[in-house]
Amino acid sequence: MKTVVSIGGSVLVPDLDAGRVEAYADVIGSLAAAGHDLGVVVGGGPTAREYIGAARSLGANEGELDQLGIDTTRLNARLLLAALDEDLASPTVPTDYEEAAESLHRDRVVVMGGVVPAQTTDAVSAALAEYVDADRLVFATSVPGVFDADPNEDPDAERYEEMTASELVKLVARGESLGSAGSNAPIDLLAAKVLDRSGIEAIVLDGTDPRAVERAVLEDDYEGTRIGPNHD
Amino acid sequence: MKTVVSIGGSVLVPDLDAGRVEAYADVIGSLAAAGHDLGVVVGGGPTAREYIGAARSLGANEGELDQLGIDTTRLNARLLLAALDEDLASPTVPTDYEEAAESLHRDRVVVMGGVVPAQTTDAVSAALAEYVDADRLVFATSVPGVFDADPNEDPDAERYEEMTASELVKLVARGESLGSAGSNAPIDLLAAKVLDRSGIEAIVLDGTDPRAVERAVLEDDYEGTRIGPNHD
Amino acid sequence: MKTVVSIGGSVLVPDLDAGRVEAYADVIGSLAAAGHDLGVVVGGGPTAREYIGAARSLGANEGELDQLGIDTTRLNARLLLAALDEDLASPTVPTDYEEAAESLHRDRVVVMGGVVPAQTTDAVSAALAEYVDADRLVFATSVPGVFDADPNEDPDAERYEEMTASELVKLVARGESLGSAGSNAPIDLLAAKVLDRSGIEAIVLDGTDPRAVERAVLEDDYEGTRIGPNHD
Amino acid sequence: MKTVVSIGGSVLVPDLDAGRVEAYADVIGSLAAAGHDLGVVVGGGPTAREYIGAARSLGANEGELDQLGIDTTRLNARLLLAALDEDLASPTVPTDYEEAAESLHRDRVVVMGGVVPAQTTDAVSAALAEYVDADRLVFATSVPGVFDADPNEDPDAERYEEMTASELVKLVARGESLGSAGSNAPIDLLAAKVLDRSGIEAIVLDGTDPRAVERAVLEDDYEGTRIGPNHD
Amino acid sequence: MKTVVSIGGSVLVPDLDAGRVEAYADVIGSLAAAGHDLGVVVGGGPTAREYIGAARSLGANEGELDQLGIDTTRLNARLLLAALDEDLASPTVPTDYEEAAESLHRDRVVVMGGVVPAQTTDAVSAALAEYVDADRLVFATSVPGVFDADPNEDPDAERYEEMTASELVKLVARGESLGSAGSNAPIDLLAAKVLDRSGIEAIVLDGTDPRAVERAVLEDDYEGTRIGPNHD
Amino acid sequence: MKTVVSIGGSVLVPDLDAGRVEAYADVIGSLAAAGHDLGVVVGGGPTAREYIGAARSLGANEGELDQLGIDTTRLNARLLLAALDEDLASPTVPTDYEEAAESLHRDRVVVMGGVVPAQTTDAVSAALAEYVDADRLVFATSVPGVFDADPNEDPDAERYEEMTASELVKLVARGESLGSAGSNAPIDLLAAKVLDRSGIEAIVLDGTDPRAVERAVLEDDYEGTRIGPNHD
Repeated sequence: MKTVVSIGGSVLVPDLDAGRVEAYADVIGSLAAAGHDLGVVVGGGPTAREYIGAARSLGANEGELDQLGIDTTRLNARLLLAALDEDLASPTVPTDYEEAAESLHRDRVVVMGGVVPAQTTDAVSAALAEYVDADRLVFATSVPGVFDADPNEDPDAERYEEMTASELVKLVARGESLGSAGSNAPIDLLAAKVLDRSGIEAIVLDGTDPRAVERAVLEDDYEGTRIGPNHD
Repeated sequence: MKTVVSIGGSVLVPDLDAGRVEAYADVIGSLAAAGHDLGVVVGGGPTAREYIGAARSLGANEGELDQLGIDTTRLNARLLLAALDEDLASPTVPTDYEEAAESLHRDRVVVMGGVVPAQTTDAVSAALAEYVDADRLVFATSVPGVFDADPNEDPDAERYEEMTASELVKLVARGESLGSAGSNAPIDLLAAKVLDRSGIEAIVLDGTDPRAVERAVLEDDYEGTRIGPNHD
Repeated sequence: MKTVVSIGGSVLVPDLDAGRVEAYADVIGSLAAAGHDLGVVVGGGPTAREYIGAARSLGANEGELDQLGIDTTRLNARLLLAALDEDLASPTVPTDYEEAAESLHRDRVVVMGGVVPAQTTDAVSAALAEYVDADRLVFATSVPGVFDADPNEDPDAERYEEMTASELVKLVARGESLGSAGSNAPIDLLAAKVLDRSGIEAIVLDGTDPRAVERAVLEDDYEGTRIGPNHD
Repeated sequence: MKTVVSIGGSVLVPDLDAGRVEAYADVIGSLAAAGHDLGVVVGGGPTAREYIGAARSLGANEGELDQLGIDTTRLNARLLLAALDEDLASPTVPTDYEEAAESLHRDRVVVMGGVVPAQTTDAVSAALAEYVDADRLVFATSVPGVFDADPNEDPDAERYEEMTASELVKLVARGESLGSAGSNAPIDLLAAKVLDRSGIEAIVLDGTDPRAVERAVLEDDYEGTRIGPNHD
Repeated sequence: MKTVVSIGGSVLVPDLDAGRVEAYADVIGSLAAAGHDLGVVVGGGPTAREYIGAARSLGANEGELDQLGIDTTRLNARLLLAALDEDLASPTVPTDYEEAAESLHRDRVVVMGGVVPAQTTDAVSAALAEYVDADRLVFATSVPGVFDADPNEDPDAERYEEMTASELVKLVARGESLGSAGSNAPIDLLAAKVLDRSGIEAIVLDGTDPRAVERAVLEDDYEGTRIGPNHD
Repeated sequence: MKTVVSIGGSVLVPDLDAGRVEAYADVIGSLAAAGHDLGVVVGGGPTAREYIGAARSLGANEGELDQLGIDTTRLNARLLLAALDEDLASPTVPTDYEEAAESLHRDRVVVMGGVVPAQTTDAVSAALAEYVDADRLVFATSVPGVFDADPNEDPDAERYEEMTASELVKLVARGESLGSAGSNAPIDLLAAKVLDRSGIEAIVLDGTDPRAVERAVLEDDYEGTRIGPNHD
């Protein structure tokens, strides 16, 4: 089995808490031990936001801000690598899909961050899953799935247990109703579109507890939303 | 003035017609002579489609197909470079935005193709425009603007003379009504979203006659759609 | 056994015929399964000729034309990779001999195209064979060997069953009598000279049927010309 | 005049305070306007310390910690670039001395961070100054010069107004008496040794107020320590 | 066991004597056969000194001279690679620590030379040992250990059988008493400081006979100085 | 005027004689001052031969020997750069034609060595001249032109004052009669063939006195052989 795990920056390093990183390293180790090849994509989190805020006030454009964000995701990738067993993972953080595929061709685990401006790490996760023919993609976000309304604001918000990728595209494109406070959708539109074209199965879950990722991958047991290929 | 010109593959090399490439080189030369710094992004066209078709039947995944397409866009970029005055343009085809910005920092003209999988050359054009703080972005497509219905199928289709980027996002996301036969929208969703966030003015026009690009840039005279920043 | 196979562009992609590419992928797979380490070098073919023709009419110099040709050989290499078992071959197309040697040090199969201007893929094949200490080099061309006259024009043309590398150098340097229509010798002079200095055994055969390569490598059974090291 | 300015991380981004970065950008702009070619080397600061702390607790070795620190200095370099006039500075952060020299060969200003493990940004500053034949090197630190005792602990600590590089080497090697709290000497031993061999004049000053750097470079007016070449 | 071996240029190629290189290749082969993973760092030697002398008289600065020296160490690394079993070692000479770690992650043996100006190959050896978590570092120099006076000049010079890294730092910083004629200390200050911070055990011995390295690594039997981690 | 100068290794560094290098730097300076853009390609010379001899006896193959030779040519290129005015030449040694073209696009002078195995620096010089559309190529060799017999052995050997590139190809291919002792032809076959296809004018002269190159370029005054484009 080949699995891509996308770990949001706020999930991996909410506060440069080494404990959380270590817990994720443990989960990755046990997934690898169970025979999974793993592509791991990590986000930027608070440090990225801090740098982006400072750069924005200095007049940086959106592309430059993205680049700062990408650099931070690579810092986070390196941090996670530091906690992983050195025999397990390639010690280099790949900067594009071909390099990542080359590493995963040789190693059990590869850890990367962002790739280029105008492509979020959500989208990178989906594109990596597609590029390496992954069987499944798990989004470990700060929201327990995809909802029909913002669960933080609307007590009646309901989670989709299962939906197709093209339904997700429509939902995200409408700009409504995703899990978090709207402006912070757990999966962005480009990622949804990549899922749509590639037909890879994805799971969106709350990654605050890393064990949730482990259970999802090993036992197919999770609370969250399953995004399946389109029926046709 | 700094301008990014996006030339669709089918527009630049409909049939490896050196005449069309030469005409575009002339236009670029005259824009540069008029004082414009130019980032040029070219698409893949028929050769890309041929390779992608062959690779798909051989079992390549969507990411690998994108990569083949990117390689072809770079071939096209090199072809266009061959027709440009060597003093004008950097002789290297940049492979990411930073390299492109570095070249445009030194030269009047830089020519590039695609960058990474899951990012069309439309999106590259918008992201490049954003990254280098371009004043304007011209999409030279095979369709004379953005329409409310497919002009090839619906005789009543009307072109938008002007629209905001966020209106374009909504239109593209609805998946309806763009100029061409629908499946071949002149601007894709990611490009639209980059325009939306960056507020760069864009023009969509029919680039079959390269002089149309010249007139649009030099005289602000064109038949097509102007996409303006959002009002707020 | 370490074998380098040189597949001419017109042989691999006479018309972007995925079937031919697939047949070559099958042969490579079965050679690898039989225990061969394989360096595969592919040529440019019709697409290269098309681009080169267009660029020449746009004023590109011979070096730039070579570069376009190289880019196309890499497209072809990627196409062949798409058809190969992903566990077998490095997913990256090396761009020089050291990179290729590094890949072949780790993988059963490496696929590459051209390297630099003024060095044909024939020569690349010979130089790669030399660089990785290959036991044998097979040229899969569109001509069934090396002849003393052009077999398409001279009904009495006879094929050399066996010749030394230095005899080949003399023959090619005389500019006469090679298999194809003269201007299209199955092996160029630089390749011949590399064979001459390195003493690697080479076989020139008609690669239109990929099985001919398989039989030659596995059973030493072929119709073509064997180029042996010089006697001394 | 060619000048290298070393800006400590805690001086440039004590708290991701964009104001401080902007003030430094102003100073760099005015130095460039006054005809100086400038190599700027920035340190890591609080973000580096945070990441290094987390990685250390995860078991990273000193070399890996250095690498995390280097990545952070490059983030800081990018932040400073965002505030600089784009016509002034190369938009790329060089990762070694040759690249930096190439940029400074073309641009008025180049901004970089660390280079490799086991080489602090102090040392990078000195090595860059040496590599580009700079006339002078200014260390903008959080301490107003080199002292004979820790000025924070010893009220009688006296600043050296002037010293030779080899005197500095001896002082630093003794591990005593540098300006800050000892463990955080304003200039490390490798930097001192590079100064010693290259004979470049250096100034150590308090860079909390960026104007201090401007006055030092333009008017040779500063409170701090001047490190001169050795007499011989 | 992971071991880094530092072979001085004058030890490996005192006169481009292939015999010495071959003897070292034999030792490396037998260490690898005994189960050691090996990082090998080679110095510049006479060729480096010749080029540096010429370049100095042409006005090159110290950084440029270092760069020439680094290039020569890489020539020497390639020479040693030529003598090694190709299945054993990565055929590429890494140019930084991350690349070296990546190679050692995959291969039994990696061979490299210098990395950047202002960092000797002594220091590179220590930094590599640190970066790859080596168990031990052996310095094969032209001096049989660390002495309290120059053994070539002072008949009463005594070798330290054992010392801590911080004692070594102090000794080197005093600039006295190292094995060779003072100006040519067997280990430089930066290397000593890296040992000091990382706590890796090092052995300094006379590498004129390569078997001395083999005995030291395999049987812990050597004449030289053992540098141990600091007590605390 | 754009000129490529090929300086043989034995001509530039017969014995790491800085005087000769300095004299060449002077000539390059005065050619640049006279308005020439210059691509300079340097050979390997005695150091290359020494390393190649050692590596051959260690079992390196011809490709690996070429690579060692290339590394040495780059050392020589760096040595020549050290003697050049830093404002004149790019401080980086390009490793392929595109990089060289990029540098020559920006600078008056670019200095490089070899590029890939199986391509001598003679051939690199011709390919570079072709790639950058040079007006003329000067081969500064240790032989005063192209002869009809070996001038060192045959007192009746006569120099060709002028010949076409295709005549040169025939002469070299016959393997006879070139200036030096036969095995060491002043121009190799691949270089001759590149001249033949590109039609660039070349001059072969004795470069022992660097002023001979200066006179040839500035005053068209030389003793040697002029190789002109073919008549047709």
